[in-house]
Amino acid sequence: MITFYFAPGTCSLATMITMEEAGVPYRPVRLSFAKEEQRQPDYLAINPKGRVPALVTERGILTETPAMLAFIAQSVPAAQLMPLDDPFAFAQVQAFNSFLCSSLHVAHAHRMRGSRWADDPAAIASMQRKVPQSVGEGYALIERHMFAGPWVMGERYTVCDPYLFTLAQWLEADGIDPASVPLVSAHRARMHERPAVQRALAVERGGA
Amino acid sequence: MITFYFAPGTCSLATMITMEEAGVPYRPVRLSFAKEEQRQPDYLAINPKGRVPALVTERGILTETPAMLAFIAQSVPAAQLMPLDDPFAFAQVQAFNSFLCSSLHVAHAHRMRGSRWADDPAAIASMQRKVPQSVGEGYALIERHMFAGPWVMGERYTVCDPYLFTLAQWLEADGIDPASVPLVSAHRARMHERPAVQRALAVERGGA
Repeated sequence: MITFYFAPGTCSLATMITMEEAGVPYRPVRLSFAKEEQRQPDYLAINPKGRVPALVTERGILTETPAMLAFIAQSVPAAQLMPLDDPFAFAQVQAFNSFLCSSLHVAHAHRMRGSRWADDPAAIASMQRKVPQSVGEGYALIERHMFAGPWVMGERYTVCDPYLFTLAQWLEADGIDPASVPLVSAHRARMHERPAVQRALAVERGGA
Repeated sequence: MITFYFAPGTCSLATMITMEEAGVPYRPVRLSFAKEEQRQPDYLAINPKGRVPALVTERGILTETPAMLAFIAQSVPAAQLMPLDDPFAFAQVQAFNSFLCSSLHVAHAHRMRGSRWADDPAAIASMQRKVPQSVGEGYALIERHMFAGPWVMGERYTVCDPYLFTLAQWLEADGIDPASVPLVSAHRARMHERPAVQRALAVERGGA
């Protein structure tokens, strides 16, 4: 059985939704960021990066959301969560997820995690002020160039969808008016209707 | 034939090395960052993100280094650049590359591209001062926990190797003493000996 270390309100939700979609059994272990449990020795022995999520399998430990999403999709091909027999279509999914992890999530992280990149409180405050713009530019690219609809890649639901949905949880807190990103907002509402999403959100809340 | 848009001194080198390793024919097109060619309308029509690299194939355009590296590996299985029949081993490669794009490259980018995340010149200067620490912490994780040796994943060369080599070009400029990262430095020297690396560097210099 997979053990899945997560924290509410983080990108771990994307992988949890994907396990629910694929029907992968897992044991969720919640970390409290308020208690800094992700930086305690017990957890650092699992994930030396001190971040979530971490997926503990019989083969070893995996981290990094894009890697975990493709791993689940490849491990459960019947769930059809990625185009597995078409390297170009597979790469399109990966390119979208790579943009989310390296650009959109990074832009967002400057609101709460500025101390990763500067020590001066004034610099950290300056980063926070730019989050609505930098996150907004990421969403503008998605709206104009990347989102096929009704799902990210078009007619077929893929692992891009739970990942975008997860980051879109932070729209309002990042200072983005949902009305300014209509495709992403409609996608977020569409995702909410999926039973797998509702199950993952219940696990996140501690209700499952 | 693939057309490959690149700029010297950027992460595009990783994909160029990988095409050389796999024997993929490509037409390299050099962009001048000094002239901001990556932000001109002609190029934005190819890659609206205004970044390099971009890989133009008969099927369409790909961006994002981790996606391109896996695409080449899957397209030329005979080159054995990734474990293609083992989802867990494939995910380990992807997790390493995802860490490079979302953490190590991002830490580095705060030296030259701070204006992505703050407008205040003092904040940008503050980010620059922290680059040796934040980039150094990324390399410390690689040295202690991720690098199997002699190649990133162990005995088998994978697409992790050209990507790490590419980012390691920036060690000195990022304020990292190469002697402080002995595994990465030895890997960089080992990579330099590969004919594919020498060919890609020649293309980057404009000598091929």
